[in-house]
Amino acid sequence: MKEKSFEITPWKVSGDIDYDRVIREFGVSRIDENLLKRFEKVSGELHPFLKRGIFFAHRDLDWLLSEYEKGNEFFLYTGRGPSGKIHLGHLVPWIFTKWLQDKFDVELWFQMTDDEKFYFNEKLSLEETNRLAYENALDVIALGFNPKKTIIFTDTDLAGALYKYAAKIAKKITFSMIRASFGLKESSNIGQIFFTSMQAVPAILKSEIEGRNVPCLIPHAIDQDPHFRLARDVLPKLGYYKPASIQSGFLPGLQKVEKMSASNESSAIFTTDSEEEVRAKVMKAFTGGRISVEEQRKYGGNPDICSVYQYYYMLFMLDDSELNNIRGKCLKGEIMCGECKEILINKINNFLKEHQRKREEARKEIDKYIISEDSDLKKLLAKKR
Amino acid sequence: MKEKSFEITPWKVSGDIDYDRVIREFGVSRIDENLLKRFEKVSGELHPFLKRGIFFAHRDLDWLLSEYEKGNEFFLYTGRGPSGKIHLGHLVPWIFTKWLQDKFDVELWFQMTDDEKFYFNEKLSLEETNRLAYENALDVIALGFNPKKTIIFTDTDLAGALYKYAAKIAKKITFSMIRASFGLKESSNIGQIFFTSMQAVPAILKSEIEGRNVPCLIPHAIDQDPHFRLARDVLPKLGYYKPASIQSGFLPGLQKVEKMSASNESSAIFTTDSEEEVRAKVMKAFTGGRISVEEQRKYGGNPDICSVYQYYYMLFMLDDSELNNIRGKCLKGEIMCGECKEILINKINNFLKEHQRKREEARKEIDKYIISEDSDLKKLLAKKR
Repeated sequence: MKEKSFEITPWKVSGDIDYDRVIREFGVSRIDENLLKRFEKVSGELHPFLKRGIFFAHRDLDWLLSEYEKGNEFFLYTGRGPSGKIHLGHLVPWIFTKWLQDKFDVELWFQMTDDEKFYFNEKLSLEETNRLAYENALDVIALGFNPKKTIIFTDTDLAGALYKYAAKIAKKITFSMIRASFGLKESSNIGQIFFTSMQAVPAILKSEIEGRNVPCLIPHAIDQDPHFRLARDVLPKLGYYKPASIQSGFLPGLQKVEKMSASNESSAIFTTDSEEEVRAKVMKAFTGGRISVEEQRKYGGNPDICSVYQYYYMLFMLDDSELNNIRGKCLKGEIMCGECKEILINKINNFLKEHQRKREEARKEIDKYIISEDSDLKKLLAKKR
Repeated sequence: MKEKSFEITPWKVSGDIDYDRVIREFGVSRIDENLLKRFEKVSGELHPFLKRGIFFAHRDLDWLLSEYEKGNEFFLYTGRGPSGKIHLGHLVPWIFTKWLQDKFDVELWFQMTDDEKFYFNEKLSLEETNRLAYENALDVIALGFNPKKTIIFTDTDLAGALYKYAAKIAKKITFSMIRASFGLKESSNIGQIFFTSMQAVPAILKSEIEGRNVPCLIPHAIDQDPHFRLARDVLPKLGYYKPASIQSGFLPGLQKVEKMSASNESSAIFTTDSEEEVRAKVMKAFTGGRISVEEQRKYGGNPDICSVYQYYYMLFMLDDSELNNIRGKCLKGEIMCGECKEILINKINNFLKEHQRKREEARKEIDKYIISEDSDLKKLLAKKR
């Protein structure tokens, strides 16, 4: 049997993704029923992203829960490569991260890798990626993270504090390891080659600040796993815990089933899109509908290949009975794609109306979340160690 | 004819160095009579290091002098990889740099590459290389640099300001270029691979601060040339001048003719050595003497293979008549190696007595020279651009 053709690297995701194969090839562990039960026992409930397998894999999540039960509280670390606008797919891991923060009442370090996006995108200047970082931070803040427990920062603005730790990590990583992990080549620039050491740093910052090892959980989309797999190899050599991680899949684009991409404007819905833009994009969405209304009434639609259904599943119908109801109607031909698109348009626009309001409010709140001065992080780091 | 066997990289210098071949292989230009005349015309006099060919090669020195004559003042940039104590060989380029600063009344940026020495030395911690940087800075200051025009700094302490520029440089350098320039391998760590972009930054800092291109002259020992050759390739792509450079050879060790090395304690004289240590080391020095006093009286000695004579030539008899006088005596067998060593011991100890006093005084003066806070460099950089 021919395997599905897809590619997942931290910089490119394409093709029809086979998540079973991803689990095998990346060497992550599946989140199985036992782990879900364990998680529910500790956290009190399960987020739909867990129940629905949107977060489908992990590394050392069981260890992290054991530490938590012993009273060894963890912190969260996630991030964003600021190369453009935020689309709905970007929000999936962040919404889950916010839920984790609320459930466990823990700190979140949110890294904006403006250096990474500069190294990997020929057209972007460092000034532009840095500007985008602060623009993207508004979307993060709009999701409602706890301002008392959330620190957002860019690599270049805090390099004065970060570079020292990146250097210690870099010394333990060879070019061969980088090539094996990321497929970088001899023609890759030396910023690209060095960068992963910057992405590893936030996993140890809390330990450095506290002066003791603090467990770290990294919720992220699976494409970033090579960074954290390498971090897990290296950090124990420097005396730190391996960071635990939990991986999500991708919200497909509206056109066909692949990762929503900011580079294909009409397949992605951006958080700053107008009601009209959302309507136009959803109206053009690929669905599982039949070729005619008559056929659809007779044979029903196919939600499993439908991007509208995927949007319900992953973001806009997190209530199971609501989802199953519409799924049933689709299968029985009781609802047409046009109606279904109207429902999604309303849901997206309702969400975005509120998100956009909070996003503008975030401009006034941003100072509560951001560390933009090296000296401020250095002060934190100087406290204990 | 078999070529002499030697190796020169920024991290290792060994063997019997053929400077003609170095000029060919490194692609630097010889400092010839015409250039010396030109230099003397502009500067008013020639330092013995120029007359004696201790600084023997350059890149674009003629261009730099032309710019200076047009009123486009340059600044100086040099540095030190802080991996241990300072020996007399290290002082050669710095003494020359101080002379240049005085003659042209220009600014000097002095980079302490604590990150480099950490990346390249398995045994050194970053804390140790950083500590050594400030210890080594005392030797620099003791040479009498103008505190109003000299800025000494470490890479890790100013990374907050430097990393941004290093990133822009790094984006223009591939692993292939690093391998070709430095012989780094796939097993090299990614800090080593990235590092040259940090070493290029000081060549543009003054331009960034002034908001216009400022010519840069880098006096350095020839082993560092691969860094600056690469910087000269890359910086014009970012809109800056190519830095000009001027290269010195190496003060040989006392044991045999090779670069004085801090890793062979008895072949190097450290600036912190006691009078007794100096005496013991010089007494064991390799000379051009005959096997007996009788033979030496009869046939004379050979100053051209004598390490004591090299010390006169490169540092301790910068007056030509004094040097020629002792050379003549040696050749005619009128002076024995023991006497010659006594002369050198006295000269070294006189120099070190004064240097060590100034070095201790420098502990009180260090704040006049050092920028150790990112925010201070950022303030300078924010002024114009």
